[in-house]
Amino acid sequence: MKITDHGITAAKGFKAAGTAAGIKYKDRPDMALLYSEAPCVVAGTFTSNVVKAAPVKWDMRIVEGPGPVRAVVVNSGIANACTKSEGMKACEETADKCAELLNISRDAVLIGSTGVIGMNLPKDRIKAGIEKLVPALSDSAESAHLAERAIMTTDTVPKEVSVEIEIDGKTVNIGGMSKGSGMIHPNMCTMLAYIATDVSITKEMLTKAVKEDVKDTFNMISVDGDTSTNDTFLVMANALAENKVIDSEGEAYDTFVKALHYVNETLAKKMAADGEGATALFETTVINADTKENARKLARSVISSSLTKAAIFGHDANFGRIICALGYSGVDFDPDGIDMFIGSKSGKILMFSDGDPADFSEEEATKILSDKEVTVTVDMKMGSESATAWGCDLSYDYVKINADYRS
Amino acid sequence: MKITDHGITAAKGFKAAGTAAGIKYKDRPDMALLYSEAPCVVAGTFTSNVVKAAPVKWDMRIVEGPGPVRAVVVNSGIANACTKSEGMKACEETADKCAELLNISRDAVLIGSTGVIGMNLPKDRIKAGIEKLVPALSDSAESAHLAERAIMTTDTVPKEVSVEIEIDGKTVNIGGMSKGSGMIHPNMCTMLAYIATDVSITKEMLTKAVKEDVKDTFNMISVDGDTSTNDTFLVMANALAENKVIDSEGEAYDTFVKALHYVNETLAKKMAADGEGATALFETTVINADTKENARKLARSVISSSLTKAAIFGHDANFGRIICALGYSGVDFDPDGIDMFIGSKSGKILMFSDGDPADFSEEEATKILSDKEVTVTVDMKMGSESATAWGCDLSYDYVKINADYRS
Repeated sequence: MKITDHGITAAKGFKAAGTAAGIKYKDRPDMALLYSEAPCVVAGTFTSNVVKAAPVKWDMRIVEGPGPVRAVVVNSGIANACTKSEGMKACEETADKCAELLNISRDAVLIGSTGVIGMNLPKDRIKAGIEKLVPALSDSAESAHLAERAIMTTDTVPKEVSVEIEIDGKTVNIGGMSKGSGMIHPNMCTMLAYIATDVSITKEMLTKAVKEDVKDTFNMISVDGDTSTNDTFLVMANALAENKVIDSEGEAYDTFVKALHYVNETLAKKMAADGEGATALFETTVINADTKENARKLARSVISSSLTKAAIFGHDANFGRIICALGYSGVDFDPDGIDMFIGSKSGKILMFSDGDPADFSEEEATKILSDKEVTVTVDMKMGSESATAWGCDLSYDYVKINADYRS
Repeated sequence: MKITDHGITAAKGFKAAGTAAGIKYKDRPDMALLYSEAPCVVAGTFTSNVVKAAPVKWDMRIVEGPGPVRAVVVNSGIANACTKSEGMKACEETADKCAELLNISRDAVLIGSTGVIGMNLPKDRIKAGIEKLVPALSDSAESAHLAERAIMTTDTVPKEVSVEIEIDGKTVNIGGMSKGSGMIHPNMCTMLAYIATDVSITKEMLTKAVKEDVKDTFNMISVDGDTSTNDTFLVMANALAENKVIDSEGEAYDTFVKALHYVNETLAKKMAADGEGATALFETTVINADTKENARKLARSVISSSLTKAAIFGHDANFGRIICALGYSGVDFDPDGIDMFIGSKSGKILMFSDGDPADFSEEEATKILSDKEVTVTVDMKMGSESATAWGCDLSYDYVKINADYRS
């Protein structure tokens, strides 16, 4: 697998564009368009929140349907959630405009929105934005980067990734882009993340790959425990790589899934590291749990704990909060039988051993906790399953960003 | 029901004391003792965290046992959690010392600890503290207030309440004290809260009253979503009021439960309002839900949302976050059929109506959100059940307190 630097347009036949449409922000890119020259099979997962934004409902219908898709149009600034009938009308008009200008079917257009909940989209500006986006479509890396910047809200850095693999002697590319960075606590899904690939694969196998991999990638991150109304993760595959169509498990499927996992994990980690106000990526790995699902629950509980996140921000080796968070995860275990370590590029130390506080150097612990990537490892000694979750610290800036986000 | 100002020693035969024992803090009260001249029946609930502090395990054994209890000894500063065998040994020695000096049985002594997790208690200081506490026991309101101050950690104000009721022509008193103020997300229980009453009641009926009332009081508050290792709620009743023993449901039981509910709700609200870093009490009432349990889940989800809490801190009428939090509560409902209001002593306004954003004045909303007590009301229009939950806003000070709490 070769890591490339091409973002969402890495795969053959995909073009992207970004523009400033003035949806809510002034003078910054806030609309993106992704287009495939060839019809795509699509798979996706969506928020488990019962309050689903209009574009989520729109996409769910299309992903469940049989038809191929060709385009995704995304705006930032306004989430088009809690907007009832006006919200669906905005989706229809958006899709119609794209379909008209791209000469494709209305149901080949997917839609994404992110931003403030409970505001109606300015439909005229959306349509004017599409008119600017269509002629700007290009397969250049610059267009991919601009599209990524257009879907960002409080994100401070773009989140893109692309890889090249070989299947049946054919070169297959996968490109991805995503955005965070608050209201991140995906459940069965993620925030906005889009992946475009030229692999040839059936809808059934693509769906299987997506549903399984999100459990260990996008569903393992949290910034603030709030599951959004707009979480959307879509993978489009247009078959232009001309490999033999992947229609069952086997070597080709495994190669693709491995690359997809790398892409998903990379985007997920980037979202966690750039959580609102974050100063550090906070990773937790649980090893030797009795079941995979319990390993995931335990790891997620630790990276979601506000008290632990605040301690990471303060570089304070307050390991009791980590043990406490394991304890309320919903998983049953014997606290007297576990070990816990903290680590970073500065080293790794044992903090809790078989139920007792370990004798560690505060100075060394503070040094480890001062790095930009901090890892907690918990050994449950109950079995052989493991899982990793990613979050970030809780800083003054998280409060600042969210105390006046809407204004 | 008459509200009195006597705290935990309001009921006949109860004495309290507080002292500075130097457990972890310097020069501030950090040990409290509560003692009853007569044997008490006891009921309690404890943390659902599988990581239970040593004093929680100690108390659970005693509350489940048949014997009467006589005393509670509590320290702040160190939680005696994640301390394995040393932790239980500290409990044993604490109980032995109390039993010896008070001339009561070791199993008549309950123990509470709160503070840093993963540190061993200095047993000599605990024992020296008990030697100071026993001769200082008094039924004065001053002693009650000192005991309350001794159990506080990051609390900024004491949390006490006492009431007087009449049962069978006899005067019955109930006194209570509790402490917050971080790691507050009780589940089947609360943080440390103690209630002493002279009512005559069977252990069975007292247990029933406690288990039912916590569902609507202590279990309906959250400060940070972290369920502690030390949550303990105990009610002791010594029968000195000489009412006819309450051994079944009926008028006397109802009178007692109503007063107990007032005491529990008052302490719970005080904990929420004094959550770490809080500048406002944030109350959410869900009305017309289909079931009581769903009403509770919805209300708890709103007051637990970090994004909503940050918006309250910023006095920002970002109502979409509230609808979003209802949506991920785990309760199924139709977002297009609900109404939502915000209110305070400055007024009450409709923000969301039948699935659409309402037309409200930003100025009026900001005024309401600038009060010290902010209330959200959600009308589910699905049935007739309601529930209220209490939390607080999320401020810079929450982060500050928890980034360097242990140091």
